[in-house]
Amino acid sequence: MIPESLNNLIESFKLLPGIGSKTAERLAFFVIDMEQENANFFADSIINVKNNIKHCSICNSLTDDDVCSICNDNLRNNDILCVLDDPKNVFLFEKMKIFNGKYHVLNGLISPLDGINPEDIGINKLLDRIKNEKYKEILFALRPSIEGETTSLYIKKILDGSNIKITRLASGVPMGADMEYIDELTLERALVDRKEIE
Amino acid sequence: MIPESLNNLIESFKLLPGIGSKTAERLAFFVIDMEQENANFFADSIINVKNNIKHCSICNSLTDDDVCSICNDNLRNNDILCVLDDPKNVFLFEKMKIFNGKYHVLNGLISPLDGINPEDIGINKLLDRIKNEKYKEILFALRPSIEGETTSLYIKKILDGSNIKITRLASGVPMGADMEYIDELTLERALVDRKEIE
Repeated sequence: MIPESLNNLIESFKLLPGIGSKTAERLAFFVIDMEQENANFFADSIINVKNNIKHCSICNSLTDDDVCSICNDNLRNNDILCVLDDPKNVFLFEKMKIFNGKYHVLNGLISPLDGINPEDIGINKLLDRIKNEKYKEILFALRPSIEGETTSLYIKKILDGSNIKITRLASGVPMGADMEYIDELTLERALVDRKEIE
Repeated sequence: MIPESLNNLIESFKLLPGIGSKTAERLAFFVIDMEQENANFFADSIINVKNNIKHCSICNSLTDDDVCSICNDNLRNNDILCVLDDPKNVFLFEKMKIFNGKYHVLNGLISPLDGINPEDIGINKLLDRIKNEKYKEILFALRPSIEGETTSLYIKKILDGSNIKITRLASGVPMGADMEYIDELTLERALVDRKEIE
């Protein structure tokens, strides 16, 4: 009974994560009454993202161009390279304006159990870059998980003996968190990493 | 720093109701990794809904055709006409399979304070239809509000003296509701409309 074009749009919205039937219907009805210009912009944006977004040929983060704006930015600190496993997190860091170095995005994390080996996540490209660019510090901002630790330890081992400082984001109790909701692993790490109050 | 094509898609999602920055970002990143086929289907659905959806020339509900499938369905009960103020609710009724009559969708509700008069919501079209189709019952399923009451009373007054039965959806306590969360107006109506237990 629902018109086909409307039904197709509802089904489209349902393809998105976290959008169930009710929300998909609400969004589809909203599109019916949307300004034509906005609807065109919306449809074009979907097509353009699929056509234009690619991985930066240097750092592997997302860009419309061959080389991303960060890799092209000569004003950034070339001494420190932040290694991530998810291109989304580059934008997260950038939005917070707390880091002024360069980035490198791995294609995931080493996970022998899932059959993901170092060569699968593009480690050679990272190592080549570290060798050529002469970074003074490599900062790991990988997912805080066994796979994240495995990956950073694997790369650290390869770089051992070089003069490069290897760091990772501090793990511990999130600021403002309720202590009783902290999981055991986080609390254990916060204890091991405890800092002297100066 | 966010690539333009990605930023445009984030802004597009933010046009939708109930979708803030965080969700818009999450959805846009999801589209990047979507199957090309699904992304095309999504974009096409937006364009098609804008191009194809129109109001049924008889009942004013939403359809891809000139006349909707319900108006075209000869097997439906032609004695009762359900009057609504929102085309969405036609699909809600249909999904629940609890009504087999015909529908008529008004272009809103009478609201003198907002400058919305009977002629603005297409009442003449409804009255013509009632006269021509010889319905035995008109069932109002309008928003339960002052405007909804004003609208149904206005139409009832015009139809007074005809043999047509005029009804409205029962108002009262929602099934399964917690009594303490029922608003005063609903409770008052439930009291006025109280039914003898038989």
